[in-house]
Amino acid sequence: MAETRTLPGGTGAAVRMKRGDRIEIKLAHGLQVVDFWSMNAADFGEYGSMSHSRSHWFRLSPRPGDAIVTNRRNPIVAFEEDSTGGAHDTILPCCDLKRYHQFGVEGYHRNCTDNFHEGLRALGIEPPPIFLPINLFMQVPLGADGTLMIVAPRAKPGDRVVLRAEMAIVGVMSACPFDLLPLNGPDCKVNDVDYRLF
Amino acid sequence: MAETRTLPGGTGAAVRMKRGDRIEIKLAHGLQVVDFWSMNAADFGEYGSMSHSRSHWFRLSPRPGDAIVTNRRNPIVAFEEDSTGGAHDTILPCCDLKRYHQFGVEGYHRNCTDNFHEGLRALGIEPPPIFLPINLFMQVPLGADGTLMIVAPRAKPGDRVVLRAEMAIVGVMSACPFDLLPLNGPDCKVNDVDYRLF
Repeated sequence: MAETRTLPGGTGAAVRMKRGDRIEIKLAHGLQVVDFWSMNAADFGEYGSMSHSRSHWFRLSPRPGDAIVTNRRNPIVAFEEDSTGGAHDTILPCCDLKRYHQFGVEGYHRNCTDNFHEGLRALGIEPPPIFLPINLFMQVPLGADGTLMIVAPRAKPGDRVVLRAEMAIVGVMSACPFDLLPLNGPDCKVNDVDYRLF
Repeated sequence: MAETRTLPGGTGAAVRMKRGDRIEIKLAHGLQVVDFWSMNAADFGEYGSMSHSRSHWFRLSPRPGDAIVTNRRNPIVAFEEDSTGGAHDTILPCCDLKRYHQFGVEGYHRNCTDNFHEGLRALGIEPPPIFLPINLFMQVPLGADGTLMIVAPRAKPGDRVVLRAEMAIVGVMSACPFDLLPLNGPDCKVNDVDYRLF
């Protein structure tokens, strides 16, 4: 699949990638946070782990060229290109229905946890327990007093990352549906995202 | 068990706690990082999650009174007292044998992952997949450029935390054996730690 596909804002998709395969994720339609999970295709007990990656990088966020490493400290996905220079979050979990209810939403609201499940099931894969993704394009600045804030992406429309699989993986992405804080942009709207495997 | 027990430096232990039970962990013998994991005693698929806790606190580290929340966003363990004012790490994973090998150690070295397994098995519990603990007394300052450092605890000998179980839990602690960086103190030595359930 070399053609560009569009991930509708607020939805998710999963992809299979062989070692060396690349995925481009591009903000072709406006600002948007994209949660990205990676799992060893041969053993979902091994997955891209943000805490192990921080320990590997000695940074909170990756620089271009850095690889996400697994809970077994093996490289799984490398940032081959990153036009944002590393403006991604590794600190906060993805949203789930309970988070929306905590913010006062009643009834159902789309959420990244359900997108993770739906994306995998669309590939015929029974989802393993969910884990902390890398939140591509998300900005969580730290205050001098240790506080966290959620602000609009530092990325600009047209920005992109190219991730290269360092082993055979299943990758999952979710164009985060969160519209209660300016996470996806100052207007709190969600946008479509383009992706391309090559 | 109201008596004080000593956790030898570099080793681990697991405890069962009912809702409302407290555990005091005290630096009675010098500086020492203590990794602490908490799991819902009725369902190990629910566990104290650092990323969800950060999302709940809107901070990197807890303040006295804050509760660690689970991957299902329920309070599981509260910081009832904390003489350090919250000088703990939630960013870095616990050590494992591979981490020591990456630092050049050959052969076996005690590590927090094995301590997690041993502590649970000593209670007759088959360990679930390990997850990111709170690293009590550990200091990981962030540079203005996003870099992480591992430095000696800001805590002082005699400092302590009192954790209160907010549900029936299994708690696991490991007096971290890492002696290749000044994580446990400027002398890179490990120390015994006292704990008491009440």
